Amino acid sequence: MNGAESLIRTAVGAGVEVCFANPGTTEMPIVAALDSVSGMRAVLALFEGVCTGAADGYARMSGKPAMTLLHLGPGLANGLANLHNARRANSPVVNVVGDHATWHAAADAPLASDIVSLATPMSGWVRSSNSALLLADDMADAIVASLEPPGKVATLIVPSDCQWDGAERAATARVPARRAAVPGATIEKIAQILRRKRPTTILLGGAALDERGLRAAARIAAASGCKLMTETFAARIERGIGIPSPARLPYFPEQAIGALTGNEFLVLAGAKDPVAFFGYQGVPSRLVPAGCALEMLARPEQDIAAALDDLARAIGAPAQVSVPDPKRPTAPSGKLDPASLGAALAALQPDGAIIVDESATSGGPYGAMAAAARPHSCLALTGGAIGQGLPTATGAAIACPDRRVIALQADGSGMYTVQSLWTQARENLNVTTIVCSNRAYRILQIEAARAGITEPGRKSRSLTELAPPEIRWTDLARGLGVPGVRAETADDLVKHLERALKETGPSLIEAML
Amino acid sequence: MNGAESLIRTAVGAGVEVCFANPGTTEMPIVAALDSVSGMRAVLALFEGVCTGAADGYARMSGKPAMTLLHLGPGLANGLANLHNARRANSPVVNVVGDHATWHAAADAPLASDIVSLATPMSGWVRSSNSALLLADDMADAIVASLEPPGKVATLIVPSDCQWDGAERAATARVPARRAAVPGATIEKIAQILRRKRPTTILLGGAALDERGLRAAARIAAASGCKLMTETFAARIERGIGIPSPARLPYFPEQAIGALTGNEFLVLAGAKDPVAFFGYQGVPSRLVPAGCALEMLARPEQDIAAALDDLARAIGAPAQVSVPDPKRPTAPSGKLDPASLGAALAALQPDGAIIVDESATSGGPYGAMAAAARPHSCLALTGGAIGQGLPTATGAAIACPDRRVIALQADGSGMYTVQSLWTQARENLNVTTIVCSNRAYRILQIEAARAGITEPGRKSRSLTELAPPEIRWTDLARGLGVPGVRAETADDLVKHLERALKETGPSLIEAML
Repeated sequence: MNGAESLIRTAVGAGVEVCFANPGTTEMPIVAALDSVSGMRAVLALFEGVCTGAADGYARMSGKPAMTLLHLGPGLANGLANLHNARRANSPVVNVVGDHATWHAAADAPLASDIVSLATPMSGWVRSSNSALLLADDMADAIVASLEPPGKVATLIVPSDCQWDGAERAATARVPARRAAVPGATIEKIAQILRRKRPTTILLGGAALDERGLRAAARIAAASGCKLMTETFAARIERGIGIPSPARLPYFPEQAIGALTGNEFLVLAGAKDPVAFFGYQGVPSRLVPAGCALEMLARPEQDIAAALDDLARAIGAPAQVSVPDPKRPTAPSGKLDPASLGAALAALQPDGAIIVDESATSGGPYGAMAAAARPHSCLALTGGAIGQGLPTATGAAIACPDRRVIALQADGSGMYTVQSLWTQARENLNVTTIVCSNRAYRILQIEAARAGITEPGRKSRSLTELAPPEIRWTDLARGLGVPGVRAETADDLVKHLERALKETGPSLIEAML
Repeated sequence: MNGAESLIRTAVGAGVEVCFANPGTTEMPIVAALDSVSGMRAVLALFEGVCTGAADGYARMSGKPAMTLLHLGPGLANGLANLHNARRANSPVVNVVGDHATWHAAADAPLASDIVSLATPMSGWVRSSNSALLLADDMADAIVASLEPPGKVATLIVPSDCQWDGAERAATARVPARRAAVPGATIEKIAQILRRKRPTTILLGGAALDERGLRAAARIAAASGCKLMTETFAARIERGIGIPSPARLPYFPEQAIGALTGNEFLVLAGAKDPVAFFGYQGVPSRLVPAGCALEMLARPEQDIAAALDDLARAIGAPAQVSVPDPKRPTAPSGKLDPASLGAALAALQPDGAIIVDESATSGGPYGAMAAAARPHSCLALTGGAIGQGLPTATGAAIACPDRRVIALQADGSGMYTVQSLWTQARENLNVTTIVCSNRAYRILQIEAARAGITEPGRKSRSLTELAPPEIRWTDLARGLGVPGVRAETADDLVKHLERALKETGPSLIEAML
């Protein structure tokens, strides 16, 4: 057994089932070990950002870490943007990066770089191995670190001699820590606040957004009269008919502050103290209005759903509350715009769909309609590093082969990691991508106007417009092995989406907005 | 004047003419300043790796830095792989990265990360601005740092408040340091070695590979009987009929050691002490054989061409040497393979072409034939971070609008930064891309065999084969606004290449190997 085999055996023993890989020369022993040790699926991506985003999507849907396999500093660098999103999603990821042999480091060979410096900003745990004999233990430590609540990117750097030198054994899987219970005193403190019936909002985030958490929160709201909101960009939220659907904290800080104004208490349940996505002149960083006290029910790493259940019990909330039964949108007709696009998706998405939402400005209407769609999971862009949607959809489809994945994808963002489509084709994944083609970085045009640039000059326009030349998404898809069609009207979109959702394998619909 | 305008004014004043940009919200004041201050061309790329690779290609051909404009840590991360190549090429690049407003940093907003930690491994100079009043000076410092011989990646991190707050003036351009002359004593020491007529090789790199350096080296070889070699991956080398064409140091270390064996002296002229690209079991890191003394004529940052001229004079070399006049390859016919592909390109490439060579395993025959092609510049993959070819070709075309750029591009590597084609189309650049479509990471298959994996398993094969599904490059090109054709035979390639080189604007030929 060599080090590489001990690493893969350790991973398989700990329940890691998938490796999203874009390897190079320094990772060849691990590639060979994927064959000589059974139990790990190997999925090739043509760009590392696809690997890391897929690992994030896989983790969000399975709760388990996938392994990545990346090539030295530049390969890691290409994967960092989606590791950033994974970090902000608290997704467990075991990020394995090959390195030069330990004795070759001093040579400063062309591909050498400081991998630890690159990895640290986007990782919750980093280690560089230095012995084949210890590599299995390093891997077991990385896996358990990734699972430390609420979940982490754990980066293990593996020099090639640690892969090919002899090893003795795989390492026993470590027992991951469980989410810590919220102390009874904390529950009682928040219960007292709620009993006072002062204007209070509970801001839900992280694990509070699963079905159990959302139902408990709805019971608390019914009993106490408090308001509920969700964090703006959820790693994963359950939505749809029958599931409580709190309003989302708005994206722009002025609107978010407005939505929170009038509260005397803001109670955090798995959400962070809310801050503006960007700093704007004259707008504060923190969104909690003056005079509103911040209270912590449960931190992201605690057992949030149980805390909400306990809180519901403490205030004597009913065991069940009825959820309003909104009318499901009907398939639209006529002009294709964000509203009809949203209606088409909300009307047609099947039970248990996974919606990967990187729709940026085009997805607003859908977001409002999704509460009336069939029950589904929605995965949002957690870290703001665009290019997450297509990779995350890829990983979600591998985690959940029995569910349909629909990527609602802004065109500008989609171009960052378009290589994902090829992996979807190779693995024959049931992913339907709807490209929201508005041929602009629309959010930047809005942000420029917010910054007072009401009449952008020629260069400002050229840096925020995506045409000319027009990106032809159907050609791009075909080039990567995915059938693509263009929808010019809402009727087109309905027809194409109905068909795509019946077929197996990936497809792409270019929605011309 | 705000900080952003002072930055752009400073850059224009220092002769920076192009900004390769993929901006976001935190860079909007700089985007606006590109309009309000005249003199800077703004080129949009759909992915940051295109920006940084284009800046590298621009620098290699113009000798001047371009400016990039990237969005926060994740935007920088996406550009790091090609900054790594630029660093290894010693290309001057002024890498401008926006950041959150200084007062917003403490909020740890979703897009926040440690940008300095990310930038440092791939930069020779890093600074984070903290005042609009000082931003112009920071930019002037960055520009002159980028130009410090032999050239550097200088990363300037610019918080958005430093862009929008008021500034007073642009900064005066700093005077860049000149390349230091090699001391006469060093010249004389090497001259004495050459006069002894012991087996000696001069390894040429960096600035030694311009026409002046190559001619001086050829005169030295003619007078002394020493051998000449060039570093394996040159940032830029002049080649073709009439230009001395030393052999290239082989890629694989065993072959490189073999090529250097028998020398008593290895003299470095702008090249680094040669090391193996990767560490292999039983093969040393350093390639200089035992018993061969290493001597330094000129370091990469010194005036290498002048040192070679001085050395030629010191040993009484002839003022001119005739260069063998090889027979130019004729346009091939029949089967399309690396040999006929190389012959077609060497036969047809026009005078003054810029060949961007990221052909990996498919380019060997061309490399051997290029000495017989019309005079041209060749840019190689300096840092091993694949995905350099298409961006570098883009930047080279912007630097040299009167020269034809031909990207000889491996298919696997090309997929990393395929978004480059869109920028080529938007800017109507005269870039002809020849995709060497062998549908494999062939180098990895070779490396696996070298590592003893002679019968790769199913997963090893799936991680090194690029089909199925087949990547259809002509569709990808069309999707990004570039006309594409497929060549199945050498005759096809000749016909398509002849036509492409007559037309304006970009084109792509998919060579089915």
